[in-house]
Amino acid sequence: MPTTPAKSAPPATDPASLSGASDPSAPAPLLVVGSVAFDTVRTPFGSGDEVLGGSATYFSMAASFFTRVRLVAAVGEDFRDSDAQPLRERGVDLEGLERIPGRTFRWEGEYGYDLNTAKTLRTELGVFATFRPRLAEPLRRSTFVFLANIDPEIQLATLRSVRAPKAIALDTMNFWIEGKPEALRRTLAKVDALLINDAEARQLADEPNLVRAAAAIRRMGPSIVVVKRGEYGAVMFSETGVFGVPAYPLESVLDPTGAGDSFAGGFMGHLARDGRLTPESFRQAVVLGSVMASLDVEDFSLKRLARATNDEIRSRYQGFRDLTGFSELA
Amino acid sequence: MPTTPAKSAPPATDPASLSGASDPSAPAPLLVVGSVAFDTVRTPFGSGDEVLGGSATYFSMAASFFTRVRLVAAVGEDFRDSDAQPLRERGVDLEGLERIPGRTFRWEGEYGYDLNTAKTLRTELGVFATFRPRLAEPLRRSTFVFLANIDPEIQLATLRSVRAPKAIALDTMNFWIEGKPEALRRTLAKVDALLINDAEARQLADEPNLVRAAAAIRRMGPSIVVVKRGEYGAVMFSETGVFGVPAYPLESVLDPTGAGDSFAGGFMGHLARDGRLTPESFRQAVVLGSVMASLDVEDFSLKRLARATNDEIRSRYQGFRDLTGFSELA
Repeated sequence: MPTTPAKSAPPATDPASLSGASDPSAPAPLLVVGSVAFDTVRTPFGSGDEVLGGSATYFSMAASFFTRVRLVAAVGEDFRDSDAQPLRERGVDLEGLERIPGRTFRWEGEYGYDLNTAKTLRTELGVFATFRPRLAEPLRRSTFVFLANIDPEIQLATLRSVRAPKAIALDTMNFWIEGKPEALRRTLAKVDALLINDAEARQLADEPNLVRAAAAIRRMGPSIVVVKRGEYGAVMFSETGVFGVPAYPLESVLDPTGAGDSFAGGFMGHLARDGRLTPESFRQAVVLGSVMASLDVEDFSLKRLARATNDEIRSRYQGFRDLTGFSELA
Repeated sequence: MPTTPAKSAPPATDPASLSGASDPSAPAPLLVVGSVAFDTVRTPFGSGDEVLGGSATYFSMAASFFTRVRLVAAVGEDFRDSDAQPLRERGVDLEGLERIPGRTFRWEGEYGYDLNTAKTLRTELGVFATFRPRLAEPLRRSTFVFLANIDPEIQLATLRSVRAPKAIALDTMNFWIEGKPEALRRTLAKVDALLINDAEARQLADEPNLVRAAAAIRRMGPSIVVVKRGEYGAVMFSETGVFGVPAYPLESVLDPTGAGDSFAGGFMGHLARDGRLTPESFRQAVVLGSVMASLDVEDFSLKRLARATNDEIRSRYQGFRDLTGFSELA
């Protein structure tokens, strides 16, 4: 049912707010706050100049295959309406995308042949240096929330605006672990799940052993810690134990940019669609995260996610079952 | 049934040659050639000086939980009978362990906190600089053969002595990939399976993408390539597809020395015991390899393997099922 529209509320025919309010079995809409950026990326297989990127962008593209996504971010005056076209085509709700004075966030990086680690050449925060999100009423009623990799103060401000979240997940990186440790700790204390890179998990916990690092992070707040390991897969730590999945074997990886955010999109998208939050649902979410990451890296920028299909996603999920299955001993 | 004894044949009551010859359902005895060494190892958690080590030693200890193991190697005049006690206690057949003039192989290495890569400080080939194995008749009738990490010329000489092998697997390392590439290629052409580290697979194939590297290696001979990735698990490439398994999550890793050889011991030990060589059996073998590696690293030198039990191995195998299982999508 349509609700009293706030100043920047979506139109009353917005399908997400309608379905979210009227049909409890419909997938819950999923709120994401993070960066929308212009990326300049070089890999041994090609390059992209000022292409659409950013943590919230990749997340939204991936999550859009599972549920309705509401994006919260800021862009600068240099951002044209047409730049958001890939998101619009995937049905992402852009009511929370504010255009404010200044320049759009820019990231420049390159990868070597091993493609495991991006070398950041330049980060220009632009509008994110001052952006503090003000969520319109329908967005404040979101129940599934992803705080994509961005300044933890922006993550925390967003979180405080959400009335009754059911599941909150967070991503972060070394830049914030080192630069804003206190704000990050305050945010961590309020989330259910942390999705983080392998090296950054060890850095955050100051502990080289991953099992102990995950245990230390769980004591900081999140009951679930999902460690992303690039081409080595992912591993999830929770009170019910550990779940590990290898990465999907790919013959051709063109651009790893956005793999972690695509992972998060599949992970949170599935949870919002599924709604159960059971141990089994979390395991499926890790696999669907891996599916979306494996698709993302097969082409530059958002190209591969833009042409993905639901059938392809289901089929690659089955591919993960074939990849990992083995029987009991006789 | 006992056979005509060759010069250095084991006594007629040797249980392995008896069971191997008389009962086709008994586990096939497993021949291994490789190094028996004195290791000096430093990790952040402790050190060992001139402790028993070597590729054939770790392999034999691990494989001994699955089938009768026949070890072929050389030691020097500085090797005392009591040095082989851990192998003897696990029932490893030492008839093929020759004591020859010179010094026993020595390896000295250290690990940093990440424990993923050994830094080799010193390698002293000793007796392995000249050793060429001469296999006694019962050993020549072995059907399961593991060519552990050692000079590929020694591997090839051993292989040529085996009459009718059913399954041959090989391990190697950068030292031989760089130092004896032609002998290694000749050996590779004759084996069924290669077990190799991640970085070394890429080096051998001169290809950064692992899927393509494995395909290139399979064209060199082995129909099965198992890539060992330390704390990231293992992945197997074969004509029936790819199988991946994460490593067992361990809170305490004291000494990674021998993890790869222990993996190989579990892998080949299971195949020899199982006897089927089916895709399913190979998948179980990868998991049992991972089980033995995960045990090995929990203590220094051979200590952990020496005190392992069959129940513990089965229970950790089940642990891998719990670690990796996930259900189909609704």
